[in-house]
Amino acid sequence: MTAPAAGSGDAGRAPWGARLAAAMDAAGPLCLGIDPHPQLLHDWDLPDTPVGLERFSMTALEAAAGEDGSSAVAAIKPQVALYERHGSAGFAVLERLLREARDEQVLTIADAKRGDIGSTMAGYAEAWLSDDSPLAADAVTLSPYLGYDSLAPALELAVATGRGVFVLALTSNPEGASVQHAGGLEGSVARSITASAARDNARALASGHVADANGTADTNGTTGSTGVNEGTGTGAGGGTAVRPALGPVGLVVGATVAGQAERLGLDLAGVRGALLAPGFGAQGASGAGMRAGFGSAWPSVLATSSRAILRRGPSVGGLREGIREALEDLRR
Amino acid sequence: MTAPAAGSGDAGRAPWGARLAAAMDAAGPLCLGIDPHPQLLHDWDLPDTPVGLERFSMTALEAAAGEDGSSAVAAIKPQVALYERHGSAGFAVLERLLREARDEQVLTIADAKRGDIGSTMAGYAEAWLSDDSPLAADAVTLSPYLGYDSLAPALELAVATGRGVFVLALTSNPEGASVQHAGGLEGSVARSITASAARDNARALASGHVADANGTADTNGTTGSTGVNEGTGTGAGGGTAVRPALGPVGLVVGATVAGQAERLGLDLAGVRGALLAPGFGAQGASGAGMRAGFGSAWPSVLATSSRAILRRGPSVGGLREGIREALEDLRR
Repeated sequence: MTAPAAGSGDAGRAPWGARLAAAMDAAGPLCLGIDPHPQLLHDWDLPDTPVGLERFSMTALEAAAGEDGSSAVAAIKPQVALYERHGSAGFAVLERLLREARDEQVLTIADAKRGDIGSTMAGYAEAWLSDDSPLAADAVTLSPYLGYDSLAPALELAVATGRGVFVLALTSNPEGASVQHAGGLEGSVARSITASAARDNARALASGHVADANGTADTNGTTGSTGVNEGTGTGAGGGTAVRPALGPVGLVVGATVAGQAERLGLDLAGVRGALLAPGFGAQGASGAGMRAGFGSAWPSVLATSSRAILRRGPSVGGLREGIREALEDLRR
Repeated sequence: MTAPAAGSGDAGRAPWGARLAAAMDAAGPLCLGIDPHPQLLHDWDLPDTPVGLERFSMTALEAAAGEDGSSAVAAIKPQVALYERHGSAGFAVLERLLREARDEQVLTIADAKRGDIGSTMAGYAEAWLSDDSPLAADAVTLSPYLGYDSLAPALELAVATGRGVFVLALTSNPEGASVQHAGGLEGSVARSITASAARDNARALASGHVADANGTADTNGTTGSTGVNEGTGTGAGGGTAVRPALGPVGLVVGATVAGQAERLGLDLAGVRGALLAPGFGAQGASGAGMRAGFGSAWPSVLATSSRAILRRGPSVGGLREGIREALEDLRR
């Protein structure tokens, strides 16, 4: 990607890295995936329609928003595919979810896995990362088959608006290796993407993408060593490792394949961006397993759990209990 | 992908490969990209709103539908990003465009570049390829960063409903090589995806994914050597090369990089699927250049032109003139 401009969110919004770090410190390193699969809708006794989708989404948000006015999770991650399968009516529900999450001060990561080039990529960036879009989220997931640098319009808009991106790097599904491991141990695709993200975060952080999470961005960079965005992470139970200041570019790294990252030479701790790790919970990764797999990068990990928590619904109390148990596992 | 079932479209719909081949024979190997970029909306004196988007889309469809009841192009390809940037209201316009194109018997390729895994991928497949989805198109473009085989749910639904997919393989943007060329000359990512598509098309065609484009699928495979779907392509001006029967899996191959495909060992003619080639016209590829670049695969090429034609609007007459000129260039 081209050099992102210094990161001061408009409308007084602090940079994404600072906002996410503060949320992880406050709630713990857990992201609630909101995945309204047909089977879950059925299990919640809801119709597989936009009406059922809306009920599902609002219930999950209520659980995520917590009981005492502070968010129970660091972020929510709606799975866009499961809204898209309901067409424009599904997207209208997603818009409501994103809007109400903003009102509740719950951070949102739209799991859209978008990717294109040039002005078309700019179209996707505007959809998910611009202030005046009805689909505006705090961050969006991106897919780099057209090359990491093709995603530049999204990174640029993210930096300009205090938002973030998560680029697919190394995923846990067995088919992923055919693309992500290509190039071998020294030059794998996943390694090149990791290095590019590290480069862009270093650039953004050097030009002032650090800030106090509660106020406007400090663009002279002096808060970098003292603000909440640096060296904290006690809420995550990071042990002796400390979380670096987080830049605008996160990576998606499967919870169960963090161990492979080392073998492929991926310097995850050096990315200085959040590591979104799906596969915690239902898909088999435990907190202890993730901590071991991610090693020194652990303080930057945002574990995502969807079904393990969602199957505790439809009661808000059941969902909250699922969230508490997941957080306990992550903190153990 | 797992072995697709034999392909008989429901509702009497013939398989995608046969329908597309018939459309290419009738209209020529041209796909009109419908890309409502903000700049084009401005040039057409339309507002950058869902209202402007709708007017733009309906005008482009009118030009594509032709004057005499037969489609002026083989297919249209709406660029989903440029609808998505208008949120759910933009998606409602896209739904109308897809629905009216169906009524006008104009084939549609949703350029969505979606990709995910498992039941989430199935969600995207349902959105774009199921009969009862408001966003149902005839085919959809897919992005394989999570591995070609992760796209299986879309291929399976496409085969079951007489629809198709186009998987990103080798694109012309300079950033694409970092992923698509990884693995080197013998084992590049693009080559592996090409081989996988060839495998799936061979399987689908062997199990009966051939048919007369005007009727129901012939699942005993006997029409494979005599139907319109085999060995034709005179409308495309294919010279001595003949078009093979086309299976459900097409590839996206940039119009200007077809020459690279040979160097990377991609057997494009052996794919037995349509080759969607963006970059014809405004981005610099001429008909003669594409014919030379694609070589023996030329009869399977569906050239896509967006801006070179769209900038001839907003008059329907101007757009039709642009379509005629593009077709002349492709046939020369």
